[in-house]
Amino acid sequence: MKINYAEMTNHLGSSAVRDILKITQGKDIISLAGGLPAEELFPAEAIREAYSRVLTSSPTALQYGLTEGYLPLREQIAARLGQQGMPVSAHEMILTTGSQQAIDLLCRIMLDPGDTVLVEAPTYLAALQVLGSYRADIQVVMSDHAGMLPEHLEEQLRTHRPKLLYAVPTFNNPTGATWSRERREQVVALCRRYGVLILEDNPYGEIAFDESPQAYPPTLAAIDRGLGGDPCVVYTGTFSKIAAPGLRTGWIAGPAELVQILAKAKQAADLHSSTIDQRALHELLLVFDLEAHIRRISREYKSRMRLLSAELSSQRWQEASFLEPRGGMFLWLSLPAHIHTADLLPLAVEEGVAFVPGEVFYSEQPLRNAMRLNFTHTRPELLPLAVKRLETALSRYEQRLLPL
Amino acid sequence: MKINYAEMTNHLGSSAVRDILKITQGKDIISLAGGLPAEELFPAEAIREAYSRVLTSSPTALQYGLTEGYLPLREQIAARLGQQGMPVSAHEMILTTGSQQAIDLLCRIMLDPGDTVLVEAPTYLAALQVLGSYRADIQVVMSDHAGMLPEHLEEQLRTHRPKLLYAVPTFNNPTGATWSRERREQVVALCRRYGVLILEDNPYGEIAFDESPQAYPPTLAAIDRGLGGDPCVVYTGTFSKIAAPGLRTGWIAGPAELVQILAKAKQAADLHSSTIDQRALHELLLVFDLEAHIRRISREYKSRMRLLSAELSSQRWQEASFLEPRGGMFLWLSLPAHIHTADLLPLAVEEGVAFVPGEVFYSEQPLRNAMRLNFTHTRPELLPLAVKRLETALSRYEQRLLPL
Repeated sequence: MKINYAEMTNHLGSSAVRDILKITQGKDIISLAGGLPAEELFPAEAIREAYSRVLTSSPTALQYGLTEGYLPLREQIAARLGQQGMPVSAHEMILTTGSQQAIDLLCRIMLDPGDTVLVEAPTYLAALQVLGSYRADIQVVMSDHAGMLPEHLEEQLRTHRPKLLYAVPTFNNPTGATWSRERREQVVALCRRYGVLILEDNPYGEIAFDESPQAYPPTLAAIDRGLGGDPCVVYTGTFSKIAAPGLRTGWIAGPAELVQILAKAKQAADLHSSTIDQRALHELLLVFDLEAHIRRISREYKSRMRLLSAELSSQRWQEASFLEPRGGMFLWLSLPAHIHTADLLPLAVEEGVAFVPGEVFYSEQPLRNAMRLNFTHTRPELLPLAVKRLETALSRYEQRLLPL
Repeated sequence: MKINYAEMTNHLGSSAVRDILKITQGKDIISLAGGLPAEELFPAEAIREAYSRVLTSSPTALQYGLTEGYLPLREQIAARLGQQGMPVSAHEMILTTGSQQAIDLLCRIMLDPGDTVLVEAPTYLAALQVLGSYRADIQVVMSDHAGMLPEHLEEQLRTHRPKLLYAVPTFNNPTGATWSRERREQVVALCRRYGVLILEDNPYGEIAFDESPQAYPPTLAAIDRGLGGDPCVVYTGTFSKIAAPGLRTGWIAGPAELVQILAKAKQAADLHSSTIDQRALHELLLVFDLEAHIRRISREYKSRMRLLSAELSSQRWQEASFLEPRGGMFLWLSLPAHIHTADLLPLAVEEGVAFVPGEVFYSEQPLRNAMRLNFTHTRPELLPLAVKRLETALSRYEQRLLPL
């Protein structure tokens, strides 16, 4: 029987990243493609103990729970956000299945087909997928190394009257870039003036390579809350990068009224996320020094980034360019314009290394000569080999381009 | 700032059931309202051990997992479905956050605003909410005690050319009713003839009070698969009622092509559900006799249902009517036509008992004089008191109706 799907299925791309992960699974390939944290750094023992305490204490952990999520965990997250300059209450927040679900639910309650959403280019692939699935009109705001360009943002706000601005302003996925404080203030001010909601997606913000928090600008949410009046920033974060992705626990915080509507949408979507995981996280945070753990993994990730950066700075790579990220999980490598990284990828996989071609992170007019390299998942001793394999693939690619 | 939400938010009701649960929380109220299984029957120790094994074995349990869900668990579910007459492979199935997410994802990939969906009346409230949120045109097919009426179904199929038929044909929520085999065959045959997909929602089917499986008709999915050719039934089930809701693990099985599209929609929605919970379930099923556990809880639930039924058969209730369910979690009580159960509810809560007014389970033309009573969550020794409180509330209600 011919199944007549909804129109949205025509706008539902698969994730290139996950497709690449599938090809590479089980093979002897060093993958710099996934956005995965390092398994060997997970606080596995502390997590195991946290589950054990939850599951010995009370059978209500196994019962249905609140759609909004386990209240004591929301209170802990609210306290952490307060320390980070974002005073929100547990009632201005719901817990979600990772921050991916936060993005999805916000789009679900905000977007009718054809509504405009402003994004950076490049930006988080799975956000583009969600926007596509709601048939949003995706419009790009031009950026430089310091963030969105205020003049272009204002032009886009005036021209398109968007519903939403989506951004990853800190240690961006895929570029690793971080907006300056000034640009943040300008973007928040402009969105307030035009009455446009901002979704600040901040999964990487705590993976900071500089140990002084003063080295980094405040979040858009902190700037927004600091201005008083109705907030315009909705903020999403996750434990996936700072604890473990398997816990599938993210959160979304915003105006109380909006959060209530999000909760209704979540109720329809899945009633609630795993209570067991949420309670285990709550138990973990009671006894485990998460802040020290974040410093530990950030140091290790910084050292891996530096190693990758050093390898990419060798003679062979003089035509490539990149900026060292100040945190997060990704390095964005630009190659000479004639190199199309999507065509390079099959050769690289043959050589035993994988990356994500930059073009998948664009809704339009993609840059074809860039790639996203993840430096957190691969063991450091393998990074030199990974770069060597990439070099071999590049040589083969360039030989192909020579006239026969 | 005035937030301009999507049109769908106007169609996003809150769950009356969850609202009632909120009122009753922390008070000395016997709640027959929720659809909760009995906590004291959860296999808590076996579940705790399963988590412990998962979390000591491998740190990959804490890493990102497949969108489709943990493959060994899908294989176990496929094997169980095979034993229940539904031969499906692990690749014709994805795991979801409870079966609620299965309903949501299927509607998401199937329904454009205005598409018609056929339902029973009354039917599962949260399915009506999902359908409402996708702005489906909900049309009712008339039923009797044996299921949907084939003549009316055919008329509705011809008139509305629906995209989907949604049903809970076994131990229905809220009525407890079970369709006859003949009606099942007729419904499947008609939907095949008209090329309409069926979503068979079967969360309760294994909570069967008659110990002989032959006492029950096959699922729509089993009948459909038995006919050969392209299947028209998409089937969803869950571990929430047979193991524990906190595990938040359901599944949806259907044509391979449709399941692939569901996986893409799930990827956008939340990347994947909790891997830790899925792996723990897999471990649980390896060593724990789930089938014996299901027989045990079914016996206990049957005994509670019989107790409630006996109380409701006393002199005072002679104007009420109900059919004893043959399984599941709910008893549907009809009162004389002049009693509006939504108005009775506040009095009942004052008396210390809660139920769900029948009217919330209808998309249109609700029956106002019925209520849904859950018999699985309340300790059996409290059931007589619950019914007594309900009697007192009814007396007070009827006195109010008397002319002063």
